[in-house]
Amino acid sequence: MKIVFIGSGNVATSMAHAFIANGDELLEIWSPNLDHASILAAQVGAVAAGNLGVISTSADLYVIAVKDDAIADVVASLPSVTGIVVHTSGSTDMAVLSSLKAYGIFYPLQTFSKSSKAVDFKNVPLCIEASNTAVLLQLEGIAASLSDSVYHTDSAKRKVLHLSAVFACNFVNHLYALGNQVLEQAGMPFEMLRPLILETALKVQEELPGAVQTGPAVRADEKTMEAHLALLKHTPELGDIYRALSDSIKKTYQ
Amino acid sequence: MKIVFIGSGNVATSMAHAFIANGDELLEIWSPNLDHASILAAQVGAVAAGNLGVISTSADLYVIAVKDDAIADVVASLPSVTGIVVHTSGSTDMAVLSSLKAYGIFYPLQTFSKSSKAVDFKNVPLCIEASNTAVLLQLEGIAASLSDSVYHTDSAKRKVLHLSAVFACNFVNHLYALGNQVLEQAGMPFEMLRPLILETALKVQEELPGAVQTGPAVRADEKTMEAHLALLKHTPELGDIYRALSDSIKKTYQ
Repeated sequence: MKIVFIGSGNVATSMAHAFIANGDELLEIWSPNLDHASILAAQVGAVAAGNLGVISTSADLYVIAVKDDAIADVVASLPSVTGIVVHTSGSTDMAVLSSLKAYGIFYPLQTFSKSSKAVDFKNVPLCIEASNTAVLLQLEGIAASLSDSVYHTDSAKRKVLHLSAVFACNFVNHLYALGNQVLEQAGMPFEMLRPLILETALKVQEELPGAVQTGPAVRADEKTMEAHLALLKHTPELGDIYRALSDSIKKTYQ
Repeated sequence: MKIVFIGSGNVATSMAHAFIANGDELLEIWSPNLDHASILAAQVGAVAAGNLGVISTSADLYVIAVKDDAIADVVASLPSVTGIVVHTSGSTDMAVLSSLKAYGIFYPLQTFSKSSKAVDFKNVPLCIEASNTAVLLQLEGIAASLSDSVYHTDSAKRKVLHLSAVFACNFVNHLYALGNQVLEQAGMPFEMLRPLILETALKVQEELPGAVQTGPAVRADEKTMEAHLALLKHTPELGDIYRALSDSIKKTYQ
């Protein structure tokens, strides 16, 4: 399969490497920043393109992996192409692609960073949606070649999925940061929390989180919660978050 | 080393198994519930004790791993013993043991559950504190025989550590549960979130959470946050938590 990537960020980089590992051919990488495109292009044996007007028009697949706000502009600048055009955004409606002939969604539910070691795409849930059944069947085949977890997810469901990921990833990482802030103020290193963080994530790989909730709030241990709030009296924002999450836990399990 | 366990819950079970794997000898397991004591005693070749008055008084180490509220009662009922007595609580002051001769703290910063596969104690941070320097040296040797991460942590620091663990473990697990709640309402399974949850925890094993924060709040993407809040309009408690954590992220990184 011949593929063009529009975008060269973390999602594009991870997905491009997964396609290459799969034996697919990457023709061009476009990015608003030609230097960024060149780095990824060199890694995957593609050509870096600085102008959307000159990309191949006969590739099988065009993957738009740019910032959500930039998708509409990319679509408007795209030459007329014969292949399927997909975007990888969790929160952008498929309608943004509706001026194209054959289009769809290829949303990987994972957090990617260039620095972190390559994510194994086989384990990444790939959420697909398409402009019609024929395109859906083709995307299904492509998705299954990359991942063992392929889901059909319409735009409404995809937005819910993206919201759930904000809770389970973005907010979770911020709680790691708040835990670190609490430690730092007492001169202790973040590495003390790392084994606990990993075990907490491992526990819910087999169980549902509702079955393994621990801590003072779930056992309504008011004495400990009061002691914790006293420790947070000089950081009232942390106290507010402590209170809000403890109340939510109490409400959930009472 | 000869050890008596007072308590047979998740912490006692994990720690008792680590001592056995280490070649130590477990004399007795006491629990207010003799059946529970018997289960653990059978696993580790110890005797189940239903009465604190009859436990061996010449063991090297007595580990009190009962609910925080029950520690004082246990101490009051303990016969006069020659060995070191430690408790394993994150939030209970060492002073609760001050009527004893030689005492200290043995606080493992980890989440334990009987159902989850055995935690490797070598990776569990063990936080110790002692009634005097001689006892501290002995506890240090014992702790180092179980874990590669031993920290000297006085009662004030230990309470801060426990608080940070509430953020990084208890609250994090609740965010997994809220993510699941959002998914469930749209008929999607929790398993879709599992790879993302694991990767989010793996990322901070090498990096600091502040260096890898992602999501709409950190990039001040108000459009996406408004769309998420619209999705949460029928679950105002989730909306409040979304708002509080997004505000905290914005404040942290602005």
